[in-house]
Amino acid sequence: MWDDLRPVGRHDATGGYRRFAWSSVDHTLREWFAGEAAARGLDLTVDRNGNQWAWWGDPDRPHGGGRAVVTGSHLDSVPDGGAFDGPLGVVSAFAAVDRLRADGHEPARPLAVVGFTDEEGARFGVPCVGSRLLTGVLDPDRARDLRDADATTLADAMRSAGHDPAHLGRDDDTLARIGSYVELHVEQGRALVDVPAPVGVGHGIWPHGRWRLDLAGEANHAGTTRLADRDDPTLRLASAVLAARAVAEQHGAVATIGKVEVTPNGTNAVPSQVRAWLDARAVDEASVRAVVAAVGTAAAADPAEESWSPEVVFDEPLRDQVAALLGGAPVLPTAAGHDAGVLAAAGVPTVMLFVRNPTGVSHSPAEHAERDDCLAGVDALATVLAELTGDKQR
Amino acid sequence: MWDDLRPVGRHDATGGYRRFAWSSVDHTLREWFAGEAAARGLDLTVDRNGNQWAWWGDPDRPHGGGRAVVTGSHLDSVPDGGAFDGPLGVVSAFAAVDRLRADGHEPARPLAVVGFTDEEGARFGVPCVGSRLLTGVLDPDRARDLRDADATTLADAMRSAGHDPAHLGRDDDTLARIGSYVELHVEQGRALVDVPAPVGVGHGIWPHGRWRLDLAGEANHAGTTRLADRDDPTLRLASAVLAARAVAEQHGAVATIGKVEVTPNGTNAVPSQVRAWLDARAVDEASVRAVVAAVGTAAAADPAEESWSPEVVFDEPLRDQVAALLGGAPVLPTAAGHDAGVLAAAGVPTVMLFVRNPTGVSHSPAEHAERDDCLAGVDALATVLAELTGDKQR
Repeated sequence: MWDDLRPVGRHDATGGYRRFAWSSVDHTLREWFAGEAAARGLDLTVDRNGNQWAWWGDPDRPHGGGRAVVTGSHLDSVPDGGAFDGPLGVVSAFAAVDRLRADGHEPARPLAVVGFTDEEGARFGVPCVGSRLLTGVLDPDRARDLRDADATTLADAMRSAGHDPAHLGRDDDTLARIGSYVELHVEQGRALVDVPAPVGVGHGIWPHGRWRLDLAGEANHAGTTRLADRDDPTLRLASAVLAARAVAEQHGAVATIGKVEVTPNGTNAVPSQVRAWLDARAVDEASVRAVVAAVGTAAAADPAEESWSPEVVFDEPLRDQVAALLGGAPVLPTAAGHDAGVLAAAGVPTVMLFVRNPTGVSHSPAEHAERDDCLAGVDALATVLAELTGDKQR
Repeated sequence: MWDDLRPVGRHDATGGYRRFAWSSVDHTLREWFAGEAAARGLDLTVDRNGNQWAWWGDPDRPHGGGRAVVTGSHLDSVPDGGAFDGPLGVVSAFAAVDRLRADGHEPARPLAVVGFTDEEGARFGVPCVGSRLLTGVLDPDRARDLRDADATTLADAMRSAGHDPAHLGRDDDTLARIGSYVELHVEQGRALVDVPAPVGVGHGIWPHGRWRLDLAGEANHAGTTRLADRDDPTLRLASAVLAARAVAEQHGAVATIGKVEVTPNGTNAVPSQVRAWLDARAVDEASVRAVVAAVGTAAAADPAEESWSPEVVFDEPLRDQVAALLGGAPVLPTAAGHDAGVLAAAGVPTVMLFVRNPTGVSHSPAEHAERDDCLAGVDALATVLAELTGDKQR
């Protein structure tokens, strides 16, 4: 499966992936998902919000064993992202299905592999669009009107890709099928390196969000405008960047200004506007809010909240059960958002598995996981799925 | 003439102009120039470097009166530039020709209106490409390989616009025609407001240049990477921006970081690279160099010089003659680069006229000059051209 995915959306110059929602690259990835489902005789469904589901067993006729066990992740990427963030969870899900079949497992509950759409939010600015629409957290009208850098709306992008955006929104029929959700993901830190262990279990997700800073200035000639006559918004950007780092350190938080747009972005023009996006996360909401407020003060701007994810603690009995099944696997917190966090917040019993990342680097072409650790991840996932789905014959 | 130019390359959302060299908008502007020349029975020539010339009289057969008097400016703009920077000089040149003819003037020397190509360097990063190639200051191989944001080379852009780039470079035949050069330009400061006077005469141009700062970092996940583990280049950008302002103030210089490119520019990724461009100008070269060095130190980077323009002092006898002709017009320094500066540095007797700018704002949609001041500029230009060309009948 990796061989098929490796070239898709890969940018030659950086070695990173540019797999943005509803692009032609995304379309190729969705065809790959459908092909893997078909190759295994799994039934493909696409829900109203564009998420893909590959079913082993009839989702609406549980065999007396209860609602479905769902596993998967996403296939899209950040700009110049790595190969593992997202795809590792989907590939491992299909591989775990193969493992269960090879072992002669006959699941008592239906089992689905899911590919959530637009988890990274790289194109339209809001992450976890597929799971947020599914659970009703993201307003469908707001979603349809999200715009990418070329001012294309999400609705138009969906239409171009052959998906009708008219029926976006909370999908109770699909939600009712999900008994529990297991998401496997490459670790985005080095906790498993320190333990050491190849696989860990997620404890929960830090509260986090994204804010936009609109810094207006006055366009002017870079040569002839006296410094005292300038209203140069890059000075406020600089203050915001330095404040984000300093205040995050004070609060044990993380804060990043990773996206900046300068207008008109000419070498010899004082900018008329700078837009910058702040990503802030911490162990509790009060710390996040304190960081955002301090950055706003430094930038003399009122940060506009583009997304907010409250703290998530994964289902405790399920987490303990999974950790025990895996022989006492370490339990880790994470500061990264995931579709698993969105589903957990909506009340779905959810657990995450993390696969060791030797450098901790993620959202980068240098993101990596060793082959043996990936195989250990598939083993762990198959073990969990076997237990959660139950076996008809036993 | 203004009515024809007003819509060309105008960006509706900002009201600013985006007239970039060798684009389709530029092509329209070049057709406008050719049309104005034809409407006046002026002979159009396009030199090897793409500059347009409209001749009144045979450029190669001076009527015993000496080499040509040339006047004009450029039609391209910075991103979201104003209506006056460039076009005012070209429009005023054609209007001055009309005035001279209405007055029955018969020039003893040939007179040309020139439209220099790519003065702003907005697309390919190097300003005054047309005049620098003409005078041999810019290497033709380097010019052909300049790239825009889409990696299109200047050579390919010229070819697409129907101009053969094979013959770029110093053009002694064209240079030999130019006896003197007069460039009228909207003032990019408020010195004429303070005098007050509608028209001033240029003294010279501050030494100035452009430097690129390549700030490499390590791409990583904005949520899960500990602050201590980060190599975030935006912090060095922030230091550079603040240093540029502080050090420029110390030296009585101006310094601007008006163009920034962040890679990958994702909300939830620590950038792998930031590129920023520094524009610095001062009354003497030592001050400029001190500013650039201090910004480099703050950014922990070695600034790469993309262009350098030494100090220019316009021809002193010509400047005094013109100021006297205009009844003692004020003489002003400027920190802006112009094709006039390039020609002056190449030994062409050159003078500039400035038209009052009520706010001093330039390189911005808000750039403005009052109609009466523009007409005073045409009067002044016609007076100067009449004197410099001489009258056959007198």
